[in-house]
Amino acid sequence: FILETMAEMYPADITTVLYELDTIESKYVLDLLPPEVGAEILSDLDYDIRNDFLSNFTSQEIARYVNLMDSDDAVDILNELSVQTREEVIALIDNEEKAAAILDLLHYEEDCAGGLMAKELIKVNLNWRVRQCIEEIRRQAEDVERIYTVYVVDNKDILVGRVSVKTLLLAKDDKLVKDIYNPDVISIESFRDESEVVSVMQKYDLEAIPVVNIQGRLLGRITIDDVVDVMQEQAELSRQLMTGISENVEEDDSVFRISRSRIPWLVIGMVGGLLAAKFMGLFESDIAILPALALFVPLITATGGNVGIQSSSIIIQTLSSNAVVFENFAQRIFKLIMVALLNALIISTLVFAFTYLFWHDFRLAMVVSLALFSVVMLASMMGTLTPMLLDKIGINPAVAAGPFITTANDLLGLAIYFGVAHLLYNL
Amino acid sequence: FILETMAEMYPADITTVLYELDTIESKYVLDLLPPEVGAEILSDLDYDIRNDFLSNFTSQEIARYVNLMDSDDAVDILNELSVQTREEVIALIDNEEKAAAILDLLHYEEDCAGGLMAKELIKVNLNWRVRQCIEEIRRQAEDVERIYTVYVVDNKDILVGRVSVKTLLLAKDDKLVKDIYNPDVISIESFRDESEVVSVMQKYDLEAIPVVNIQGRLLGRITIDDVVDVMQEQAELSRQLMTGISENVEEDDSVFRISRSRIPWLVIGMVGGLLAAKFMGLFESDIAILPALALFVPLITATGGNVGIQSSSIIIQTLSSNAVVFENFAQRIFKLIMVALLNALIISTLVFAFTYLFWHDFRLAMVVSLALFSVVMLASMMGTLTPMLLDKIGINPAVAAGPFITTANDLLGLAIYFGVAHLLYNL
Ligand SMILES: [Mg+2]
Ligand SMILES: [Mg+2]
Ligand SMILES: [Mg+2]
Ligand SMILES: [Mg+2]
Ligand SMILES: [Mg+2]
Ligand SMILES: [Mg+2]
Ligand SMILES: [Mg+2]
Ligand SMILES: [Mg+2]
Ligand SMILES: [Mg+2]
Ligand SMILES: [Mg+2]
Ligand SMILES: [Mg+2]
Ligand SMILES: [Mg+2]
Ligand SMILES: [Mg+2]
Repeated sequence: FILETMAEMYPADITTVLYELDTIESKYVLDLLPPEVGAEILSDLDYDIRNDFLSNFTSQEIARYVNLMDSDDAVDILNELSVQTREEVIALIDNEEKAAAILDLLHYEEDCAGGLMAKELIKVNLNWRVRQCIEEIRRQAEDVERIYTVYVVDNKDILVGRVSVKTLLLAKDDKLVKDIYNPDVISIESFRDESEVVSVMQKYDLEAIPVVNIQGRLLGRITIDDVVDVMQEQAELSRQLMTGISENVEEDDSVFRISRSRIPWLVIGMVGGLLAAKFMGLFESDIAILPALALFVPLITATGGNVGIQSSSIIIQTLSSNAVVFENFAQRIFKLIMVALLNALIISTLVFAFTYLFWHDFRLAMVVSLALFSVVMLASMMGTLTPMLLDKIGINPAVAAGPFITTANDLLGLAIYFGVAHLLYNL
Repeated sequence: FILETMAEMYPADITTVLYELDTIESKYVLDLLPPEVGAEILSDLDYDIRNDFLSNFTSQEIARYVNLMDSDDAVDILNELSVQTREEVIALIDNEEKAAAILDLLHYEEDCAGGLMAKELIKVNLNWRVRQCIEEIRRQAEDVERIYTVYVVDNKDILVGRVSVKTLLLAKDDKLVKDIYNPDVISIESFRDESEVVSVMQKYDLEAIPVVNIQGRLLGRITIDDVVDVMQEQAELSRQLMTGISENVEEDDSVFRISRSRIPWLVIGMVGGLLAAKFMGLFESDIAILPALALFVPLITATGGNVGIQSSSIIIQTLSSNAVVFENFAQRIFKLIMVALLNALIISTLVFAFTYLFWHDFRLAMVVSLALFSVVMLASMMGTLTPMLLDKIGINPAVAAGPFITTANDLLGLAIYFGVAHLLYNL
C-alpha cells in the first residue's frame, strides 16, 4: 500500500513525509522505493536528519545510492561521513566515471564555487563536426538531467564558448563547431565564494554557470536549484547572526540544542550588563543625590541600540550584495555623518521638549538631550565602522548587527550619559 | 567609441555602468544602443532610477522599448508610470499579441504568482500531432527566449501535462501528443503569494513553473531568474524590518530618504524610553534609598531584549519558510517553555553568583537574579506569541523582531524588576 501511494508522489513530497517518521521506518520506506527515487530523497534531506539516517546504512547500501546521485550531491553526503566509511563507499562505487568525478570534487571547499559544482555537464570540442557533437550529446545526456547549454572547449579543455542544442540541431551535419559556436560565455573560477556565484547568476539571469580553474579549464557546472538553496541558507544564517543565535537551529530541533544555540549571546549580554552595573556603580553617589538621573538609563541604552543596528544594517546590505558604491570612502562617511546629525537633532529636540514638559527641570532636560545627541552620533559611527572593519579583517560583518553591537552601544551610551550629567551638574 | 565598447558588453554590465551616469547621459547611451539591448537594460534597472529615467522619455520611446520586452518586465514598467502615460504607451504598442498579454497581466497584484508570470511560453494541444507541435514551437520560440519545457493543454486550455523538446524531436512525426506527454506537471495558481512561488520552485528544483487559474487554465509562466530576484528582495526586506528601517533604502539613496526611513523606529524607541522613565519615576524614592537598584537596569533591559529577539527569530523562521511543523500547538509551547526555563536558570544562577561576588549583598543578588529569571521567561513568551499572533491577523511577523518587541520587553522587564525589588525589600 505504501509503495502504491509513494509511486505517485514526487520525491520532494516523500522527503517531507519522511520527516514525520523515525529513522527505522524511513529506511523501510526507502528500501521499498526505486533506488533512483531513494537517491533523490537522500540528496534532498536536511543534513542532520540524513546523518541519523545514514548511520543505519551499510557502506554497500550508501554506495548503491551514491552511484545514482549527481556528483555534487554525492560529495555533500560523502563529506558528512566518517573518513573510514567515506573510503569504503568510494571503493564500492561501480561507475568509474562517477567515482573519478567524486574524488575530484572532494578537493574543493564546501562554500566556494568548486563545492557547489557538479561534474555532470555537456561539452563538445571546438574542432568537432556537428554530427559528432550530436552523438556525443546523446551519450552524455544519459547522465545529465537538464542540459541548458552545451559548453565548447578547445583541445586543452579550456572553455571557449557555448552553443545551444537548437543551433546544433539546425546546423548541417558536417559543419564545424568553431563555425557556429557563441564565444560569449560567463563562467566563474572554482575558488570564488558562493556569494559571488549567487550574485553573478542573479545579475546575468543564468540557470547554470560553468566553473573553470585559473587557466580557464572547464571543471564543472553549477545549476540554479543549488544556488537557490544557498540563497535560502544565507538568508537564514544572516537572520540568526543578527538575532544572536550561534548555531543553525530549527524549531523542530531538541530543547538542549535550541538552548545551547542561544546561551552564548545571552552570556555576552549578561557580561555587558554586569559591566554596565559596575560602571554605573562609579556614579552611585550621583544617583543617590539625583535619583531622576537613573530614570533615563533605558532611554539612552535603547536609542543607542536602535541607532547602532540601523546604521550597521545599511552597510551590511552594501557589503553583502557586493554592490558597487560609486562614492569614495570620504563621501560615504560624510553622508552618514549628515544622516546621524539630522536624526540626532530630531530625536534630542523631541526628548528635550518632552523631558522639560514632564519633569519641569531645565538642567535635567539639557543633560538627557545632550547625552542622547552624542549617543546617536557615536552609535552611528560605531554601527557603520564596525561592520566595515570586520569585513576588512575577513569576519562576516552580519555578526556586528547582533547583540554584540547592542552591548557595546549600551556601555558607550552610559559612559556618555553619566559623563555629561557629572559635568553639567558639577557633581 | 562608446558604442564600440558597449557593443561588446553584456546588457547587465551596461546597466551597472549607467548607475554611474546621470539620466541625460544615460538616455544618450541608451539611444545609441540596439533597441533590444536597451529594452533589456530598462527591464533590469532599479525601479527608483528607472523612474527618473523614464520621465525623460516620450510615450513613443517607451512604447518602442516595451514592445521588445518580455511581458512580465513590460508590466512592471507600466505599473510605475502615471495612468495617462500608461494608457498612451499601451495604445502605441505595435505587436498586438504583446499588447493583449500586457493588458491581461495588468490585472494581477504585484506580489502574487500572477504578478511574477510572463505570457511568453510554449504550449501545444493534447490532440496535435508531433509535426504540428514542432512547427508551432518554431513559431512560438521567436518570442520565448528560453523554452525549458513545453506545456500540454486540452481544448479548453486547461494545463494537463508537459513534454520535453527532446521527446518531441525523437518521436515520429505523426504521433499524437496525448500518446507521448507526461501528465505530471507542477503548477501554481495565480493568486498564490510570491513566497509560495519561491518555496514550491525551491522544493521541486524547477527552473520555470506554469501559472494556472482556479479552473486549471494555463495563464503564464514564472521563470527562476525572477524568483531569484524575489528571494533577494525578501531577504533584504526582512533584514530591514528587523533592524527597524521602514522603507526600502540603499546606501546610495539621499540623506533625507535614509534619515526618514530610520526616524519612525527611533521615535517609537524614544516614546518607550520616556514611558520607562515615567514608570521608573514611580520608584524614584526606592532608588533614592537604594541607588544600587538602578545599576542593574541595563542588565534587565538588555537581557529581555536579547531573549525576546531570539525567541521571535525561530518562530519567524518557521512561519516564513512555510515549513510544516509536526508538533501541535501545545507541544510547541511546552518546548519553548522548557528552553526558556533552562536558559532562565542558567543566566539567573550566573548573575546571582556574580552579583553576590561583586556587591556582597545577598538580598540584592536575590532581587536581581529573581527578576532576571522572570524577565527571561516572560520575554520568551512575548517573543514567541507576538509573531504567531501577528501572523494570524495577517501582519508580516518579521515586524515583531524589530525595535517594537525590544521596546515592549524593556518596559516589561522594568516592571518585573521594580516589582520584585519593592516586594523583597518591603519598600
Ligand atoms: Mg536539490
Ligand atoms: Mg554552505
Ligand atoms: Mg557541495
Ligand atoms: Mg536577475
Ligand atoms: Mg545539483
Ligand atoms: Mg534541523
Ligand atoms: Mg531579469
Ligand atoms: Mg515584490
Ligand atoms: Mg511583475
Ligand atoms: Mg531545491
Ligand atoms: Mg522575466
Ligand atoms: Mg535605490
Ligand atoms: Mg536594548
